[in-house]
Amino acid sequence: MAAFRVDNRIGRTAILLVLNGEECISKEQLRQLKWKSCTGKVGSMESQKVVAAIETAAKKNGIIQPGVYRETHALYHAIIDAVSGVTRGQVQIGSVLRTVGLSFSIIRGNPYESEQEGDWIAVCLYGTIGAPVKGLEHETIGLGINHI
Amino acid sequence: MAAFRVDNRIGRTAILLVLNGEECISKEQLRQLKWKSCTGKVGSMESQKVVAAIETAAKKNGIIQPGVYRETHALYHAIIDAVSGVTRGQVQIGSVLRTVGLSFSIIRGNPYESEQEGDWIAVCLYGTIGAPVKGLEHETIGLGINHI
Amino acid sequence: MAAFRVDNRIGRTAILLVLNGEECISKEQLRQLKWKSCTGKVGSMESQKVVAAIETAAKKNGIIQPGVYRETHALYHAIIDAVSGVTRGQVQIGSVLRTVGLSFSIIRGNPYESEQEGDWIAVCLYGTIGAPVKGLEHETIGLGINHI
Amino acid sequence: MAAFRVDNRIGRTAILLVLNGEECISKEQLRQLKWKSCTGKVGSMESQKVVAAIETAAKKNGIIQPGVYRETHALYHAIIDAVSGVTRGQVQIGSVLRTVGLSFSIIRGNPYESEQEGDWIAVCLYGTIGAPVKGLEHETIGLGINHI
Amino acid sequence: MAAFRVDNRIGRTAILLVLNGEECISKEQLRQLKWKSCTGKVGSMESQKVVAAIETAAKKNGIIQPGVYRETHALYHAIIDAVSGVTRGQVQIGSVLRTVGLSFSIIRGNPYESEQEGDWIAVCLYGTIGAPVKGLEHETIGLGINHI
Amino acid sequence: MAAFRVDNRIGRTAILLVLNGEECISKEQLRQLKWKSCTGKVGSMESQKVVAAIETAAKKNGIIQPGVYRETHALYHAIIDAVSGVTRGQVQIGSVLRTVGLSFSIIRGNPYESEQEGDWIAVCLYGTIGAPVKGLEHETIGLGINHI
Repeated sequence: MAAFRVDNRIGRTAILLVLNGEECISKEQLRQLKWKSCTGKVGSMESQKVVAAIETAAKKNGIIQPGVYRETHALYHAIIDAVSGVTRGQVQIGSVLRTVGLSFSIIRGNPYESEQEGDWIAVCLYGTIGAPVKGLEHETIGLGINHI
Repeated sequence: MAAFRVDNRIGRTAILLVLNGEECISKEQLRQLKWKSCTGKVGSMESQKVVAAIETAAKKNGIIQPGVYRETHALYHAIIDAVSGVTRGQVQIGSVLRTVGLSFSIIRGNPYESEQEGDWIAVCLYGTIGAPVKGLEHETIGLGINHI
Repeated sequence: MAAFRVDNRIGRTAILLVLNGEECISKEQLRQLKWKSCTGKVGSMESQKVVAAIETAAKKNGIIQPGVYRETHALYHAIIDAVSGVTRGQVQIGSVLRTVGLSFSIIRGNPYESEQEGDWIAVCLYGTIGAPVKGLEHETIGLGINHI
Repeated sequence: MAAFRVDNRIGRTAILLVLNGEECISKEQLRQLKWKSCTGKVGSMESQKVVAAIETAAKKNGIIQPGVYRETHALYHAIIDAVSGVTRGQVQIGSVLRTVGLSFSIIRGNPYESEQEGDWIAVCLYGTIGAPVKGLEHETIGLGINHI
Repeated sequence: MAAFRVDNRIGRTAILLVLNGEECISKEQLRQLKWKSCTGKVGSMESQKVVAAIETAAKKNGIIQPGVYRETHALYHAIIDAVSGVTRGQVQIGSVLRTVGLSFSIIRGNPYESEQEGDWIAVCLYGTIGAPVKGLEHETIGLGINHI
Repeated sequence: MAAFRVDNRIGRTAILLVLNGEECISKEQLRQLKWKSCTGKVGSMESQKVVAAIETAAKKNGIIQPGVYRETHALYHAIIDAVSGVTRGQVQIGSVLRTVGLSFSIIRGNPYESEQEGDWIAVCLYGTIGAPVKGLEHETIGLGINHI
């Protein structure tokens, strides 16, 4: 598949990034937008491991500054919003006997025309949710967007 | 944009359909999969109007049989799951002073290899959520999948 | 159906009362237990009307003292717990485009052996929940129990 | 107690089955309705154990076909709805320092007049919820109904 | 009561401000911290009116810049968090037949030692929640804190 | 700081008690009101430990009678309401990868003019919530009030 055109919709870009993989995104366009991004995978029955995997990826890839709480705080709530879309209602996985296998993308940048809006962060999760038995699962997506 | 390749992932197809529009989906592939689909738009501060718009579109486009409760029931919970991803936690829009502008897609078909799995329904919502003032909003997505 | 035997399980009694109707309960046994009870019906798309109908019945039948806030407070939370069982998760009816047709029972008394436990209140709701179209609905129950 | 009369209200039957026990239900009537049912008990502080106990009973008693995901999926959401009535709001037990002692019933069959409605599944839980100290508890009920 | 000492705990300051009123806070200390603040009152059965009253006060008192979405977004989620503490669980007031009479305070400033943390916003609500009958109510508080 | 004046607002008193510490409250005034109170501290990633710490303090300080379920039940729901304000929405701490460091106060007494209202219980929690890394946290408060 050819690289898809990135426009300034940070959520849409995060969704396409997680659906299509990094090789399908035009790095040149992201650079022009001055956006940072990364992707990863996490499978778990423990919701805290999903949160931790995304936080670790964001720090390792320089998307947020680990020592600055406002950046951690912004990312955290974007993650919880995304997980909330995946679990639909209650941020619970193993405690209600289900498991998730997820890919995730994180993008940081300004999706608005005004420079005053500063950076925002989008976290997108896509994959499967279901019984802890292979095949007994269906797809799920979640997107969290926050100012940073 | 060229028509994207549809595979048997019903959720992924519903997401791409809502992001890219109907002209971008290969009708031929949907026919081969024996899947039915439709798309639409709804903007409202009232969550019940979002539910109603999707139900109406599903019935008008022959995706569910209106008189059969199990089909209405399956669709209803797929919609609520999708709205729950959009609102992240509480299925409330105007009652917490926010508004949504959404596109939606509905797909019905069997995404599994076994014929025994029968039909499933995927509802995807994508658009913006925010203050009832143009521009004061960010993107949001929700996906609900149910057996039908 | 013959009057069913009432034991000191206040919740079970409230459930059987709402399922079988007042004529089926042994008034004599309730008197021996020094329990008060009433039943009623409410159908609505507005959750506040469900709450109001039960509160009104409780006051009119002398189950709680209207001017004493601790009694109103105890009843209110028993109602919300019962409605929460009916709606499963979010206390929302019409705002998510569904309607309920409910019978309810209210019982006040001490279900414990120790007199120190004082009075408790049980509110049971049973009926149907579904689309605002006759027949497109399934059964639902909710039970709230609180000290009073 | 004499066997109670079963009518086509699947939820009401599931409730009476869990309240009165299997010996009180007319097996003949269930056979005429072509309904399948089973009952069981589970006590735990872990919500996933409650879910697992009901799923295991449903499979062992041939109420659902284990290898067919749509059946597992239908049962799962009926269970979560029932647990949600028991816990009223948040599907949490031990994590908020409480415990449950529950009986459950599962019924599968068509409660509607039209054959097109196919099978539905009802899961009813009844028992006690409270502090992890004997006696410091009150009754609770939950009912989940889903098409299958 | 003498003006209480303000330290850099923005949440504690917002709580004391709403409990004690503006005349009790040392304006001098707020100035030294370069913090902005305001207070107000709102009573309603409609949650969106509570949200609107706080947003309006924040804009009128220059605490946020109305045209900058990141500021509106930060304030909005601080408000919803505060209302969530007031309502405990579901952001619903009149729809579950209760009413609130609230005072609120809003403070903007940097409560951390590092300048990199930038501004944060604290919204505190304190007052009564209860039946729509005077006196049938108890106290409630909520605090939301967000980076801005 | 001089002892603050206690009036009959039990929630406000519980808040000031947890913010200012026991030495700042006029014991004489509490005695005149015939109110009982205690304070304590708890830090944990496990919500059940927060609940347990408050229950233990209430019993050890004679605020509730351990063997009387209605008192345990009243306290329990006041605690859950307070924790719900702290966590804003979902009573989850470590399972969503966050931790709390909290002070708490418990007060028992009649805050209403009528003697018929009997005793009520107020539980207030105040402290920090955030990532399990020192400094990456912000303040939080929760208040639960129940009749006892």
